[in-house]
Order: sequence, then structure tokens, then C-alpha cells
Amino acid sequence: MTTKTKEANSESILSDIAINAELADYSPVKGCMVIRPHGYAIWESIQKTLDKMIKDTGHENAYFPLLVPESFLQKEAEHVEGFAPECAVVTQAGGKELTEKYVVRPTSETIINHMFSKWVSSYRDLPLKLNQWANVMRWEMRTRLFLRTSEFLWQEGHTCHATHEEAKEEVIQMINVYKDLLENYLAVPVHIGEKTDSEKFAGALDTFTIEALMRDGKALQAGTSHDLGQNFAKAFDTTFTSSENKLEHVWQTSWGVSTRLIGAIIMGHHDEVGLILPPKVSPYQVVIIPILKKNMDNSAVLDKGYEIKSDLEKLGISVKIDARDQISQGIKFNEYEQKGIPVRLVVGARDLENNQVEIHRRDIRSKEKGISLDGLGELVKNLLDEIQTNLLERAKNFRQENTKNVKNIEELAEVLNSSGGFARAKWNGDVELEKILKEKFSASIRCLPLETELADDYPCILSGTISSENKEILIAKAY
Amino acid sequence: MTTKTKEANSESILSDIAINAELADYSPVKGCMVIRPHGYAIWESIQKTLDKMIKDTGHENAYFPLLVPESFLQKEAEHVEGFAPECAVVTQAGGKELTEKYVVRPTSETIINHMFSKWVSSYRDLPLKLNQWANVMRWEMRTRLFLRTSEFLWQEGHTCHATHEEAKEEVIQMINVYKDLLENYLAVPVHIGEKTDSEKFAGALDTFTIEALMRDGKALQAGTSHDLGQNFAKAFDTTFTSSENKLEHVWQTSWGVSTRLIGAIIMGHHDEVGLILPPKVSPYQVVIIPILKKNMDNSAVLDKGYEIKSDLEKLGISVKIDARDQISQGIKFNEYEQKGIPVRLVVGARDLENNQVEIHRRDIRSKEKGISLDGLGELVKNLLDEIQTNLLERAKNFRQENTKNVKNIEELAEVLNSSGGFARAKWNGDVELEKILKEKFSASIRCLPLETELADDYPCILSGTISSENKEILIAKAY
Repeated sequence: MTTKTKEANSESILSDIAINAELADYSPVKGCMVIRPHGYAIWESIQKTLDKMIKDTGHENAYFPLLVPESFLQKEAEHVEGFAPECAVVTQAGGKELTEKYVVRPTSETIINHMFSKWVSSYRDLPLKLNQWANVMRWEMRTRLFLRTSEFLWQEGHTCHATHEEAKEEVIQMINVYKDLLENYLAVPVHIGEKTDSEKFAGALDTFTIEALMRDGKALQAGTSHDLGQNFAKAFDTTFTSSENKLEHVWQTSWGVSTRLIGAIIMGHHDEVGLILPPKVSPYQVVIIPILKKNMDNSAVLDKGYEIKSDLEKLGISVKIDARDQISQGIKFNEYEQKGIPVRLVVGARDLENNQVEIHRRDIRSKEKGISLDGLGELVKNLLDEIQTNLLERAKNFRQENTKNVKNIEELAEVLNSSGGFARAKWNGDVELEKILKEKFSASIRCLPLETELADDYPCILSGTISSENKEILIAKAY
Repeated sequence: MTTKTKEANSESILSDIAINAELADYSPVKGCMVIRPHGYAIWESIQKTLDKMIKDTGHENAYFPLLVPESFLQKEAEHVEGFAPECAVVTQAGGKELTEKYVVRPTSETIINHMFSKWVSSYRDLPLKLNQWANVMRWEMRTRLFLRTSEFLWQEGHTCHATHEEAKEEVIQMINVYKDLLENYLAVPVHIGEKTDSEKFAGALDTFTIEALMRDGKALQAGTSHDLGQNFAKAFDTTFTSSENKLEHVWQTSWGVSTRLIGAIIMGHHDEVGLILPPKVSPYQVVIIPILKKNMDNSAVLDKGYEIKSDLEKLGISVKIDARDQISQGIKFNEYEQKGIPVRLVVGARDLENNQVEIHRRDIRSKEKGISLDGLGELVKNLLDEIQTNLLERAKNFRQENTKNVKNIEELAEVLNSSGGFARAKWNGDVELEKILKEKFSASIRCLPLETELADDYPCILSGTISSENKEILIAKAY
């Protein structure tokens, strides 16, 4: 398959799954999508889990204005350079031309710093640790459902600290919270690493990222956490009086994940039928399908279905029953497989007699008939755990199979031009490499991973020299 | 007090409480506010309760684009007339002038109908019952924290039905859900009623409202539910094939409440000290303040504080402990009274010896010392119920005292020019009355209440005639 066909193919996989699973739909607004109930329910599930993690680490939620005065963006030089080209701009309001234009927030560092400078005055006000759940807008040329849309939903954390050390701890803490979310809920393994200077957030000293590998061999930046240093604090004069009574600028962080995570689930877990949802983020974990006969009294089968639902719910399992009588069971089976629901239980008239059900497991598409209703709850509970574990293991194995250590550009070319995946290498820091990656391979340095694997005597991929100064890097094509 | 001074006074009450309780702050964006953590936590509490009610009545959440093509707004004639003057307009994006402008959604009927027309084709697709939690923008000339801001957070429900009857049932069901929320959670009693033609939603056949009375004698429209008929369905060609195989336009509803509800809590429950929160919506119901002595070992008092916290939490009570040692207890007492926290428990060294605490009840500002720790949980639980009930009763009594039946404009003038409140009257439907109310009293017909009280022989306030055609109305000055 040529690179171009592969590209088109992986795009159509994403959109086919998203549309068929009714996760999203295209909208009449350029680059923006509609998130349909099944997709939004996955987002609510992610939100619920992450919101608790954010609060448990001592942050509070707040809400800041959607519109940001254009002049605010310009106060931090790198920031405006990075974001201004992508902004949607409000120039009219209330029937009049505005004297000062507003941009629809692409991110909220500037307007939040304006408020921070009002709220923070003493070391007693620190640390200040806020988070916002919001929509943001970045006008993108080329968009894809969930992975890159002009408007997206996200959370953005913004914190102020008295010392750089404390801010750096916060940055690392939050990228680890994201890793926990991805691996233990979304079942998507990630590498934590540092971005290179050319890839870091516009206005940050340093950006940490979690990088995942999708089933098409591409890397996905799934979340970032930034050490902002005092850049925004200086631009907005966010100062505090220290315990030694000195006026100092605060040290700041920001961090975010978005509805892109739903894209990570889609491209991280699917098969030829469609989406596969990890039980912990699935809007409901089990779907019960009673076999309904036309022009018959189906009440016994329906009653049994509701009884099983109620029994499972008592064990903390979330269950949907599909009792629609105008739709055939075959169509229903297909619908929930496309939607990725982890477990399907089917109950028919004969099952009633035998006190049993049929059980279908979405991740490996296996079916077992004649499962006794006695102990079904525990069986399903264990099965859900098994599916959750299996999805993570499968993704880890896939990543391992698709990660190659490379010593030079030739070896790298073999990886990037074949099945894709991560290439692990050493690098002397020469930005020439990033240029070559971009121009020759449409690839990039995804990160300098915190967990390294290569031996000290591994040579720099660019220069071939061996040096203790060389840094380990992960290279891949990416979304 | 003159009307003007009263006006200024009630405005300063709102802003003083909102600012001092750290619910919100003014922002650098015209008419927009920042919702601070304490205010946002109240919103989260409202969201959690209402979201469950919305789902329990068979609706699913989804998300539609922030931006709406300007041409969409123009498809429904009354709708564009009502909303266009308030719109913020995006004319530039991605560094270019847009060929088609977008408005920042003031409400989403138009863009949602565009999608509905794509999704609905058969009676089998109906009813379609969606809800969206989102930010919206209406460029207001005169704004007030929470009650009227250019950007606000809300939920908007949008449904499609096969018959007008079913749609009308939905409209009434949802306005009753709002009444339940207001009365049983926010402790704010409301009248359900119909809006007059001049006050209904732009594009609706009929609008139902819940109207509350604030402590300054003004009415507040706290939520609305609209019978949209087939107006938007016709504008966007949202049709379905009926079970009789005929092509028909769907019947629609929409309904919403917003962060204005926090304004309803502020202006519905406060005293000279500040906010009073109903226990069911308070971010935490109990604050524990351990009395800390300078340069002493306070660990025993702190331990006891955390022990009480844990005991209360086991009973489902939400508790915060304020263990800051740089801040005096007097300042803490004041802070939580201003923030409206229902119950304060104070524990000092002497209380430890006597196995007791001091308890303070925010709604009536009563304090009792020497409350035994034995059975404290049950006592607090009952107290919270009592506060919740008391706030609703107090508000109902206030409303009753401030509702007068009026037979003519002179009697009405007495009500509106004195302490305010609702005037209950009969009306023959002549719109001249609305003109008089607006011009002479800056007042309006708030609604035609569903629950009527006046006798059949009560005369029309305008014409003095007695007729079975006359409708009962509630008149008031309003926000």
C-alpha cells in the first residue's frame, strides 16, 4: 500500500467508526463537529473520572470568559506568534463594530493571568490551583473528527506557585495524572516525555507530553503539561509578596486534555467491525437484548431481561436493555458491536426454560451460549475486568511490536516507510534532525521520554557519535 | 427610599454578596464575568441534580457547535428579529475575512434543527430528546452578575415529536422539572405560567415560565420551556414519514435554565451578612473550624476536627475543615457566613475535654455551645433538613406577604410603588395594559399562572369588566 493510500485509509477508518458508532457527525460549521449522545456519554465518563483526579490533587474548578481581548494575546510574544494565526475573531457585537476585537479563546493563559494578577498578592494566596472545563477554538486547515477539530471541548488547568521547584512538581504530577487516566481507564499506554523546543507550547519554558501509538502506526499527542516559568506572570504582572517580604513574579503551570481522547480510544481500540470501548469508559458496560417474537407475548423474556439488568446494577455494572420491538436482533447485535459495548447478553424464550443466557464479548468477538444465570453477576464483573486488562495488554504488545531502536537515518527510514510505529534513537540535539524528519518523512520527534531504554554507547542518529550528552528520543509520524 | 435609590441598593446587594462570597468577579470582557470556585461549585451542584432529572425523563446529552452560520438565524423570521441585535459575530478566522459570518450561539434552535433534519426521517426516529450543557452569548447593554451577563452557562433541551400533543406534554413536563429543582433544591418557590405573546421566545408558539420573587420585591424569570410548534421544522425542513406513511413536519420543544439560577439563590436567600445557601446546593454543607492556638501543639484539636469530618461524611454530609493556621477564627467565621455555608462547627481545646462542639446555624444565625459529640451526626443531618425546609418556608411566606390582589390600576400602583412584589389581577387580553405597565411602572405581566386564585367575578384590571374570558395574570417589576 502506498503512503498516500494508507493515509486515506486511516482517515476513513476514523470517520467510518465515528459515524457508524454515532459518536459524532459533520456540522455545517467549517472544521467543527457535532458530538452525538454516544460520543458525549464517553466524554462525560472521561470527565467524571478526570474531574475527581483533578480535585483529589487539590484543584478547584472555575469559569473564565470565552472571549479574550485581542490585546491580551499580544502581551506574551511567543504566545501570540503561536496562536494568533489560528484565532477566530469577533469584530461585531450588539449590532456594532467593536473598538477592541475579541478572539474566541484558543487557550486561556492570558485572560486567566489578568484575573490572577488581581487575586494574588501574598505568598499566603499561593499555591493557586484552578481548572476549567470549556470549549476552545483553533481554526484548523485540515480537520478530522475528534483528533483535530476547530472547536473542541477540554479542561485546562492553571496554577500559580511561589517557587519554580513547586511549579515543576505540579507539571510532573499532572502529566502523571493523565498517564493514569489513559492507561487505567482508556486502556491506552503512553510514554511521558519532554517536547523539543520547536514542539513546546507557545509561551512555555518546557512542555511534557503523553504520546500514544494508534493502531495505524501513528503517534498521538494525547495530553500536555507546561512549565510556563514566569513568562505570563511577567507579561501580566502577576506578583506576590514573599514570606521574606520581597515582591516576586509567580511561577506558573498549565495542562490540558481534550475530546481528542475519544479519538485516542477510536484509533487505539478497533477492529474491522468498529469501535471497541474499554469497560471503564463505556457509557454502559453491558447491553441486554431480549429475543422478541412477532405477534407473541414476549413479557416473560422482557421481565427476565429487566431482572438481569437490575441484578447486574446491584453489583455496580451499568446496563442498557434494548427492548425495541420494531428492530430485528441482528440489526441490534450489529449496532452495539459498532458502538463498542463491551458485553452483550442475549436472552430468549428457550434460555428462560434453561435458566441461562448467551454472552458475547466485544474485544475478541467470542460468543458463549448456555451461561447459567446463577453467578452471572460475578461472571460479568470478572469478564469486564478481563476485557479492560486485555485491551491495555493488547495495546502494549502492539506498541512493543511497533517500536524499533534505530542507529541511523537508514534504519529510521525502514521503520517510517513500512508499518510505522515509534523509532527509538539517540540525538545530539541538532535541530537539523527535526528538519530532515519533517521534510523527508513527515515525521517528528514526539518526545524525549522520561523512561529511557537505550544503552549509553548507542550513537546519535544524525552524527553517529557516542556521547553522554546525547538524549534519547522517540520519533514517529503523528496526527 | 426613592425608586432610584432602591434600584441602586438592590444592585449593590447583588454585587456585594457575589464579590464578598467569592462567587464571581468582573472580567475585562464587556458584560462577562468570571465564575470563581465557590460560585462554580454551586453551579456543579445544580448541574448534577438537574442533569439526573433530565436523564431520568429520557433525554440524552449531546454537543453542537458554538458558532452558527449567520444565514441559519435568518431562516426563522421571528427568531432572527429577536436575537440578531444581541449577537456577537465572528467575521475573521485563521487570519482571513470569512465569506460567511458566524454568530456565537445565543441559543441553538437553528443549528440543532439543521442536524435534526439530517437525523430524523421516520416516526421510528421519534421522539428525539436531546440536551446540551453549553455557554451562550447575548450581547447585553446593561449587565448584572449572574442575573444578566453577556456570556452565560446553561442547558438547552431540544426535542422532536410526532404530534403537537406529545410536544405540549414535554413542554409542561420540563417546566415542572424546573419547578421541582427550584423549590426542592434551591428552596425558591415559583409560579408556573404562560408568557404573553409579547414576552414569549422569539420563534415559539407558546412559552411557559417559572417566576420567582426576590427579596427586593422583584420578579425573576428563572427558567422557560417553549412549544415551538412546527416553526423551526418548517424553516429547516425537519420532516418525518408518519406511521400512516405521510410526510410531516416534526413538532418541537426547547427549554433552558442558566447560571442565572445562582442569582436566584443570592437574591432569594440573603441577609445583612451575605449569602445563605440551601444545604442541598451548598458545595459543602458543614464547615469545621478548629480553634488553633499560636505556638502551641494543636494536634489534638485538629485530630478531633478530622474525626468529626469523617463521622459526618459517613452519613452523607459534605464537610470542609479549615485548618489554616495563619488566619484567625474570627476572620474564618465571617468568611463562611458571607459564603452562606449552612452549618459551622467549632471545636476548641476545652470542647475536647467535655466531648462537645459549638454549632452555628447560618439561616437564623443562632449559636449553641456545649453540643455533645454523641449523636452529633444525626443532629446535624436533621438540622440541615430543617434549614432546607425553613428557607423554602421563609421564601413562601415572603412571597405571600408580597402578593396582592388588585382590581384596578390605582391598586396596582400602590403595590408597584411601595415594596414591590406580585400583583395578581384579571385581564381581558388588551395589549394596552402591557404598554401602561412598561411606561408607567417599568413593570410587566410576568405570566398567566397555571394555578389561579381569583374568583370568577373579579374585574379586568384595565376595563373593569367581568367576563369568563378574562385571564388571571401576575404583574411585577422584574430583572
